[in-house]
Amino acid sequence: MEHPLTLKDEPGKPLYRQLFEHFAEKIRAGDMPPGERMPATRELAGQLGWNRATVSAAYELLEAEGLINGHVGRGSFVTAKAAPAGFDWSSGREQREPEPMAPAGGIGAGCISFVVSRPSSALFPLDDFRESCEAVLRRSDLAEILQLGVPSGYGPLRKRLLEDARRAGLASPGDDLIVTNGCQQALDLIARVVLNPGDRVLVEDPAYPGLRNLLSAAGAQLVGAPVREEGIDVAEAKRAMERERPRLAVITPNFQNPTGATLSLAARRAFLEAAHAAGVPVIENDPYGDLRYAGEPLPALKQLDESGGTVLLRSFSKASFPGLRVGWALGPKTLIDRLRRAKEASDLHTDQLSQAVLLEFMESGKLDAHRQRVLRAGAERLAATLEACGRYLPPGSRWTRPEGGMNVWVRLPRPLDAGELLPRAQKAGVAYLPGRYFAVSRPDHGALRLSFAGLLPEEIRKGISILGNIFSDELQSASGDFESSTAMV
Amino acid sequence: MEHPLTLKDEPGKPLYRQLFEHFAEKIRAGDMPPGERMPATRELAGQLGWNRATVSAAYELLEAEGLINGHVGRGSFVTAKAAPAGFDWSSGREQREPEPMAPAGGIGAGCISFVVSRPSSALFPLDDFRESCEAVLRRSDLAEILQLGVPSGYGPLRKRLLEDARRAGLASPGDDLIVTNGCQQALDLIARVVLNPGDRVLVEDPAYPGLRNLLSAAGAQLVGAPVREEGIDVAEAKRAMERERPRLAVITPNFQNPTGATLSLAARRAFLEAAHAAGVPVIENDPYGDLRYAGEPLPALKQLDESGGTVLLRSFSKASFPGLRVGWALGPKTLIDRLRRAKEASDLHTDQLSQAVLLEFMESGKLDAHRQRVLRAGAERLAATLEACGRYLPPGSRWTRPEGGMNVWVRLPRPLDAGELLPRAQKAGVAYLPGRYFAVSRPDHGALRLSFAGLLPEEIRKGISILGNIFSDELQSASGDFESSTAMV
Repeated sequence: MEHPLTLKDEPGKPLYRQLFEHFAEKIRAGDMPPGERMPATRELAGQLGWNRATVSAAYELLEAEGLINGHVGRGSFVTAKAAPAGFDWSSGREQREPEPMAPAGGIGAGCISFVVSRPSSALFPLDDFRESCEAVLRRSDLAEILQLGVPSGYGPLRKRLLEDARRAGLASPGDDLIVTNGCQQALDLIARVVLNPGDRVLVEDPAYPGLRNLLSAAGAQLVGAPVREEGIDVAEAKRAMERERPRLAVITPNFQNPTGATLSLAARRAFLEAAHAAGVPVIENDPYGDLRYAGEPLPALKQLDESGGTVLLRSFSKASFPGLRVGWALGPKTLIDRLRRAKEASDLHTDQLSQAVLLEFMESGKLDAHRQRVLRAGAERLAATLEACGRYLPPGSRWTRPEGGMNVWVRLPRPLDAGELLPRAQKAGVAYLPGRYFAVSRPDHGALRLSFAGLLPEEIRKGISILGNIFSDELQSASGDFESSTAMV
Repeated sequence: MEHPLTLKDEPGKPLYRQLFEHFAEKIRAGDMPPGERMPATRELAGQLGWNRATVSAAYELLEAEGLINGHVGRGSFVTAKAAPAGFDWSSGREQREPEPMAPAGGIGAGCISFVVSRPSSALFPLDDFRESCEAVLRRSDLAEILQLGVPSGYGPLRKRLLEDARRAGLASPGDDLIVTNGCQQALDLIARVVLNPGDRVLVEDPAYPGLRNLLSAAGAQLVGAPVREEGIDVAEAKRAMERERPRLAVITPNFQNPTGATLSLAARRAFLEAAHAAGVPVIENDPYGDLRYAGEPLPALKQLDESGGTVLLRSFSKASFPGLRVGWALGPKTLIDRLRRAKEASDLHTDQLSQAVLLEFMESGKLDAHRQRVLRAGAERLAATLEACGRYLPPGSRWTRPEGGMNVWVRLPRPLDAGELLPRAQKAGVAYLPGRYFAVSRPDHGALRLSFAGLLPEEIRKGISILGNIFSDELQSASGDFESSTAMV
C-alpha cells in the first residue's frame, strides 16, 4: 500500500505532532491550497495504521493554528487565508509542550463518560455551600479576604490546616505548610524549585497525564516503577533509585491514579527505607486519601518518615468542590519557604474567597457531613464498577479492586488495544481513557482507566455492559488470527 | 578596621545570600555553638558598610532554616538544635531563586506604608460584593461553577471578556483569550512556553520585582531599557532590540510600576515599529490601564498592532479585589492554545467561584460604579502625593507626575541613598521600597517608590512630611562631605 505522506523520522516526538508539522509545512508552503479538503481522519488513520484519535489530535492542532477549518459531517478544509507571516508564537520550548490530557474527539452529550477523575456534581451540597459563603460574607474580616494576600495562604486556613496536621501526627516541629491551587500547583512549584533540566524523577508507571506533563515541562527525565495490585513495586523502585539516583520520587500511596492501587503499611515502610538509603526525597501526592470506602486507613508516608524527607500534598478538590482550586503542601520549612517564594513569582497567592469559604465549610462541620455522603455514594459506585467488570468484560480481562478513590484500571485480554477500540466505544456512547495516556515507559495497549466517581451506578452498569459487548465482539473476530498466540501465553 | 567575617567572592549572588551561607556553614559545622549570640544587625551592617536590611534578610533566612532564633529587643541566638542532617531541600535551582519582594523588617502596625501597590480596602464596596456573590449562589449553574472547569477559564466570563475586547477593537479575528490567576500568572505561563534558559527579554528599567523574579526564575537574561518621564526610552529600546534580539519584550505602557510613567501615542507607535523591525513579540502588561485619573486614554499597543505581534494582559485585581486572583491574556490563538496547555499542567484552571462572582459584579454594573469611586479616590491620593512631594522633599528631589495608577517614583538628590535611609524612616513609622528593589541593570540608589493608592490623603501628607524631614536632615549632615561634589553636578 502506498502511503499518501512520508513523515520525517523523529523518535521521541509524538506522532500527532509529526503529522501536524507535516501538514502545517505543506499548507504554509502553498502545496495544499486554500479550500483543499483534508483526508478524512478515519481513512488517514487506517492508511497509516494509527489510532484515529492521533490523527484527530493533529487536525485539532492545525485548526488551532488557523490552518484548517473543520465542519461536522463535511470534513476539514485548508483555510482561505493561511496564518499571517510575522511572529512565530509556536516556537520556544517545543519539546516540552505537554500532550493534551483528554482524548481527541471529546465527549458528546448523553455519553457515559468514564474519562474524568472527578466527583459527581449531583452530590454537591449546594445549600450547605451557600450557607458557608453567606457566613463568609458576614465576616468582619471580609475586606481583608478581598485584599491582596500573602503567598503562604489565607492565614486562618493555613493555621487550621497546620494545627490539624500536628494533631494527626503528620507535622513535625520543623514543618510548615503552604496553600496552593490544588495538588497540581504544589507539584508544579516543587518541580520549579527542586528540579533542574535533565534531573531524573521516580514516578509510578502508569501515572496520570497531569503529572507526566508537568514533570516533562520541567525538563525532568521520568523513571517509572511499575504499579502492582498493591501499589508501586517497591523492589523495582528500590533498584531504580539505586541505579538512577533520582532527584525526587513522586508517589500516590492511596488509590493511585490511574490504577486505584494502595500501598500496604509494610510496603510504605519499605519504600521509605529504600528512598532514604538512596537519599531520594519523597513527594507524597495524596488527593484521594480522604476517599476510602472500605478497609482501614493507613498512616501517611509523611507520618512514618521522621527524617524530614517527605512532603505531603493534599487538596479539597476531590472530596468537595474541584472548581475551587485549594490544596496544600506540608513539609520541611526549608522547602516550604522556597515554595512560597516560587508561588509569589508564579501567581502571588491562591484565591482568598475560596480559601475562606472552604475554611468555613470545614469548621462548620459541613465538609465532614458531605464526605459521609460522598463515601456512601463512592462505595456504591465502586461496587457497581467491580460487579459490572465481572459480569460484562470478556474472559481474560483483569482489573484492580481499589478500596477507595475514583479509578479502576482494566487490562483487556490480548490482542485487544483499548486505544484502537475507543472510537467504537465513543460511537456507542461510552468514553474512557486508554492506557497509553498514562504510560511512562511501559505502554500498555490493553489497558484503560474507568473513572467511576462521577457516574450513577446504573450508568456505570450500562456503560460497562456496552464496553463489554464491543470488547467481546473484537476478541471473537480477532480470535482467528491470534488463537495460536494467545494459547501460547 | 578588621572585618569579623570574610565572604567568598561570588559576584552575581545577592549579598544577603552570601552572608546567610557564611553563617549557615559555621553553625552547621559547629563553629558557632548553640546559644551563641549573633552580631547585632545594626553593628554588622556598619562593620560591613552594608545596608542593615541586607543583614536582616540574611538573618531572616537563617531563622527560616531553623538555625537561629530572634527575640525582639534581645537579639538573635544560634538555636539549640541545628537543622537535622539528611535531606537537602535547599539545593536545586539555587541561582534562580527569586529575591524577597518586600523589605526585610516588615511593616509595623500604625506605620504609614507606601510599600505595596494595591488599592485601599476601605474603598471595597462590600455590600455590592455581597450582592454579586448572592446572585451567583442563586444561579442555576452553581454546581457547574463548583465542578472541575477547563484551563481556558469559566466559559461565560471568557466569552464576555472576548466580546468586550472585540467591541473595543482590541481583539483581531485570529485572537483568543485565556483566564489566568492575575497578570502575574499570565506572564509566568508566557515565560514557560516561550522562553528557553538564556533567552534575552527586554524590560523597562526599573521594573517591579515580581516581573524580574519571574523572568529570572525562567532562566531569562534581562535587557533593561531606561524609563523616562514618558515611559520606556524608545530609542534605547530600539537599539537594545537590534543588538540583543530578545525573545520577548515585556512593557507596561500605562502607569508603569514603579515609575507611574505612561507611553505617549507616538512613542507607542515607534516602539511597536521597532519591535516589529527586530522581530520581537511584545507582551503588553496592563494591570493599571483602567486607573486613569486625568487626561485622555490612549489606545493599547494591542490595538495599534495589526500584525499579531502583541499579547495584552489585564486583570480585575487592581480596580476591584486583589484577593480574587483573576486576570486574562488576549492574543494570537496559536499562543493562547499553548498557554492553555501550560495552564492545565500548572494548576488545571483558575478558581471558578471568583470568576463567576467577578462576572456578575461586572455585568450588574457594580464594577463600573466601583471604578468611578476608585478613580475619584485615586485622583485625590495622587494629587496629595504630588503636592506633598513638592512641599516636603528636599531641594534637588525629582519625582514622576503620573495621570493614574498607584505609584510615584522619587529620585533624591545626591548623595542620599534611599535604601540606607529606609531603617530610619521605618523607625519614624513610614515605609517605602527603595530603588534597588526595581533595578534591572541600573541601580538607582537615590530612588524610591511611593505606592499611594492604599493610603488616605492625610496619611500621604503625614508620611511624606516625615520622609522629607529625614531626607533633609541627612542631606544637611552630608552636605559637609559632599558640598563640593554636589556643586559640580
